[in-house]
Amino acid sequence: MIMSEPRTSKWYIEYSSPYLGHMHGLSELVVSLRTNFQKMDILRSGAFGTCLILDDKMQSTSVDEFIYHEALVHPAMLAHPRPEKVLIIGGGEGATLREVLRHKTVRQAVMVDIDDQVIELSRRHLPEWHKGSFDDQRSVVIATDARKYLEESKDTFDVIITDLSEPVEEGPAYLLYTKEFYQIAVSHLSPSGTLSLQAGTAAIPYLFNFGAVFQTLSSVFPVVAPYQAFIPSFGLPWGFIVASKDRDPRKFDSNSVDSMILERMQGTNDFYDGICHQGLFSLPKHIRKELSSTNVVIEDNRPIFSYH
Amino acid sequence: MIMSEPRTSKWYIEYSSPYLGHMHGLSELVVSLRTNFQKMDILRSGAFGTCLILDDKMQSTSVDEFIYHEALVHPAMLAHPRPEKVLIIGGGEGATLREVLRHKTVRQAVMVDIDDQVIELSRRHLPEWHKGSFDDQRSVVIATDARKYLEESKDTFDVIITDLSEPVEEGPAYLLYTKEFYQIAVSHLSPSGTLSLQAGTAAIPYLFNFGAVFQTLSSVFPVVAPYQAFIPSFGLPWGFIVASKDRDPRKFDSNSVDSMILERMQGTNDFYDGICHQGLFSLPKHIRKELSSTNVVIEDNRPIFSYH
Amino acid sequence: MIMSEPRTSKWYIEYSSPYLGHMHGLSELVVSLRTNFQKMDILRSGAFGTCLILDDKMQSTSVDEFIYHEALVHPAMLAHPRPEKVLIIGGGEGATLREVLRHKTVRQAVMVDIDDQVIELSRRHLPEWHKGSFDDQRSVVIATDARKYLEESKDTFDVIITDLSEPVEEGPAYLLYTKEFYQIAVSHLSPSGTLSLQAGTAAIPYLFNFGAVFQTLSSVFPVVAPYQAFIPSFGLPWGFIVASKDRDPRKFDSNSVDSMILERMQGTNDFYDGICHQGLFSLPKHIRKELSSTNVVIEDNRPIFSYH
Amino acid sequence: MIMSEPRTSKWYIEYSSPYLGHMHGLSELVVSLRTNFQKMDILRSGAFGTCLILDDKMQSTSVDEFIYHEALVHPAMLAHPRPEKVLIIGGGEGATLREVLRHKTVRQAVMVDIDDQVIELSRRHLPEWHKGSFDDQRSVVIATDARKYLEESKDTFDVIITDLSEPVEEGPAYLLYTKEFYQIAVSHLSPSGTLSLQAGTAAIPYLFNFGAVFQTLSSVFPVVAPYQAFIPSFGLPWGFIVASKDRDPRKFDSNSVDSMILERMQGTNDFYDGICHQGLFSLPKHIRKELSSTNVVIEDNRPIFSYH
Repeated sequence: MIMSEPRTSKWYIEYSSPYLGHMHGLSELVVSLRTNFQKMDILRSGAFGTCLILDDKMQSTSVDEFIYHEALVHPAMLAHPRPEKVLIIGGGEGATLREVLRHKTVRQAVMVDIDDQVIELSRRHLPEWHKGSFDDQRSVVIATDARKYLEESKDTFDVIITDLSEPVEEGPAYLLYTKEFYQIAVSHLSPSGTLSLQAGTAAIPYLFNFGAVFQTLSSVFPVVAPYQAFIPSFGLPWGFIVASKDRDPRKFDSNSVDSMILERMQGTNDFYDGICHQGLFSLPKHIRKELSSTNVVIEDNRPIFSYH
Repeated sequence: MIMSEPRTSKWYIEYSSPYLGHMHGLSELVVSLRTNFQKMDILRSGAFGTCLILDDKMQSTSVDEFIYHEALVHPAMLAHPRPEKVLIIGGGEGATLREVLRHKTVRQAVMVDIDDQVIELSRRHLPEWHKGSFDDQRSVVIATDARKYLEESKDTFDVIITDLSEPVEEGPAYLLYTKEFYQIAVSHLSPSGTLSLQAGTAAIPYLFNFGAVFQTLSSVFPVVAPYQAFIPSFGLPWGFIVASKDRDPRKFDSNSVDSMILERMQGTNDFYDGICHQGLFSLPKHIRKELSSTNVVIEDNRPIFSYH
Repeated sequence: MIMSEPRTSKWYIEYSSPYLGHMHGLSELVVSLRTNFQKMDILRSGAFGTCLILDDKMQSTSVDEFIYHEALVHPAMLAHPRPEKVLIIGGGEGATLREVLRHKTVRQAVMVDIDDQVIELSRRHLPEWHKGSFDDQRSVVIATDARKYLEESKDTFDVIITDLSEPVEEGPAYLLYTKEFYQIAVSHLSPSGTLSLQAGTAAIPYLFNFGAVFQTLSSVFPVVAPYQAFIPSFGLPWGFIVASKDRDPRKFDSNSVDSMILERMQGTNDFYDGICHQGLFSLPKHIRKELSSTNVVIEDNRPIFSYH
Repeated sequence: MIMSEPRTSKWYIEYSSPYLGHMHGLSELVVSLRTNFQKMDILRSGAFGTCLILDDKMQSTSVDEFIYHEALVHPAMLAHPRPEKVLIIGGGEGATLREVLRHKTVRQAVMVDIDDQVIELSRRHLPEWHKGSFDDQRSVVIATDARKYLEESKDTFDVIITDLSEPVEEGPAYLLYTKEFYQIAVSHLSPSGTLSLQAGTAAIPYLFNFGAVFQTLSSVFPVVAPYQAFIPSFGLPWGFIVASKDRDPRKFDSNSVDSMILERMQGTNDFYDGICHQGLFSLPKHIRKELSSTNVVIEDNRPIFSYH
């Protein structure tokens, strides 16, 4: 039986467009500061527990971060036959790293996030996110610009996961979403290499970003598989994409996904399994249509604009 | 390219819990009144176009109502081998009726909504919803209490679709969500009869209602198939259920759904097709777990409480 | 020069009516709990600094509490020729006590607030409010129901200051705003005794409460002098009243107020002086008209209703 | 007795600073468009009736516009011994004109507002504001830039009333608040000429603007008399100033104001009379201190910045 409670009077308000806002009832403000790169808040919401917010955009919450991180990481990891070396771009809270390390084949996970204050404050205040993964012997954490890192690196990775905010022109992550960047990324991927990322909301009437990222990846990768998941604290369905050099995760049936999870992963998933995999990649008709009909490719000198 | 616009200053605010709110930027207030049964607003939002709101709960919008209504109607209709006689409970805006009538086998669609002012104002202000379906020769529209109607009726239906707000104690629809009501409903279903309904949000941490409705239906129907769809204007993923006397829609593969659509329906779907069907019914692991572990059955004298 | 800053995303929202709200940008939540009597928040706002909020009503803030407390205390104190014994009803944050103790004639200040947790947490978190006044040798702090206290007491006071929330039926303070209570209070006042209180917003269209309290006091006291002050954090002008057995503060000219302040008070006022006194009691025409035309007297069994 | 009503879900939100907002419950949107110069809304609020809003700033409402317009117009008019020719700068809704025309001595009232769409839509939708004053034989309405108008004009006025939004750099009214503009204005005033204006909020901690306008006027006019009034729909006390070439309205006692009103004005005031006049000009100590200690003069090339 659900107990009724009076409505709170303290709110965090996030806007996804000039005409859409989400209100999160607050019970505590844990961190509220400006790092060298962005505004950072850690707060407690009555609905979603502890929340990490960067530049007024919800990143993840203790109640539903498992959905976001399992959705972002596992399809790309399973789409590679044997991921040993993984690069995470962004992901400062450490939960993407945590999920990557659950794959037994992984020998090294390099995480490159430009903002060492986010990493440090997440390490201190978000133990449920990283669960000690920063201290795993396989982890290498580097605080620098990921594009510069890749341009200068000679390493090859099996999987690259970009865990970043959206590619709006004014955002710091913009140059990590362009065709030029994906060309750099693909040159650092091993023969069966895969890449995954979040691509913004998957909700009509805001499908433009998802479509643009889909088309941009399609101009570089032979296989590009879009999918959606529903992270309640985001207030809208969310788009993700796996791009790969050869294997297509849409071809995995439910049982084979379950078998791979059993064989290749440690611990237990809360969100992702074979049935869930089918749900993720089975997009509604209007989204599939929108993705395929978008004709925008994001380039270094052709950014896309955003709502404020 | 998306043009940037300043944030609006006029908002409709909907609360889904004491700690969660959704803000819709307004451009016009079309209708704002109190009917004999409920508060009713029709307004225009910058994100979702025309919106119908009852008792401060978003019912549907011109931008995404196709998702809600296709998701609510077609799985139940296709789960019946040949639906000829359909009962719609609620659904005053006429879009559920519109989708039902697209099935060529339908000979009669009876819609019972207690609130004739909602029907009348929808007819006038929401032509994109009903698209003339109230005037279809196969339509019978009755403004009365649906439970009383069914209790007194001797008719049998192939499909019953309940298009109502959630079963919270204080709501008018509560007695249309109880075990006793489903027992009445099942007694009015033909041998392969099916029933579908929306069951509230499918979002953690608010899965309780979905679980309770699932268990309540399971106490009456042999087949109960829960699914989710993402109606952007609701701000949260949404739960639906098909209950049936024998056929289970989870067993339909993508191609057979596409074939049935082609064969049995007029016009074109925007949301629902074979691939989408797979996505709807492939629920994430944590939702499946929550649904099966809920142990609440809603009865006439055992309501569930709600958030304010 | 004023530096421009982006709008915050964290807000405390207070409603003064079903159609009026005030939003305070938050930078910190210090205390958030439920005492035995009420909901209590201490938070930091970007505009008003530290804020004390009881039952979702702003009580006072570090930026403008001097206005509220000087306005509440000094007119009543100066309207008495030589206040030695003062009773404060409510006023748990200690600032009313602080201002009372600044009057050199005071030998004893008894403060009766029902909520000892508010007193204790104010003592700890609001040192700018009480400034040590709880520890003044002249202070007597009693945590009990003030009406019961007065009914059982045989003491006489020169000034009674009631520093309470408004007299809405559902509020805890309701029985401290009735004709019966003022009859008790007047029987505990010395021959030139005065009483002051806040009487709710002084803003059209919400003047009803101010008028009702004015009329209720007028049914008991020979002199009733209403006035207004503008506490920015309240978002609306605020009504106050001095009631007295003989002296009328409206007859004090600016110079005589300044002389009394100089002679009878320690420390320096920030808000209140002779000119300000003229401003407080010189009400606009429509407010004077509304006060005199209200014909409601609040009685124990005739409460007034409130907005939600 | 006040009937309780549920809180509305439709709101207009106005921000006065990055940390302060005011919410007005909506019942109707009458006009919502962008003129050639600004954003314009006319809406109905449950608290304040019809509201005129320009560039997301509340201008006036049917419930309390009498306070604003009587406060803006009458002190300046009475400070002149016999105002015959009056210039109104801004004031497109016609209520300033209405109040000016109530003074029997007035033979011509010239109103210069840059935005003819505001004038036209006010004429149509705000009859309670202008009450036909646009059609008074003494009225001359000119839609042009007021600074340009004055620079090119050879006319002399007895009173100039500037009824504009605040002098923030990005606003259209900025060049009507500078020292240079006041020098132009004073050169168009007759020997006993007066000027009045609204000077932004009079609330701590936002007194900066009021102080800057006060100092700017003081650099040009021999007499500068600041005052405050409380317009409930603004959510904060509001500052006004009368500047004059010789007479100081602060020297008028209550009776002489009442005599002048009786003798020189038609109709009845709701807000302003002799007592109210004393209240307006009797500023609290901290405001007087802030005004006199500000050391900013606004010049054409030295704007002041604003909050967003």
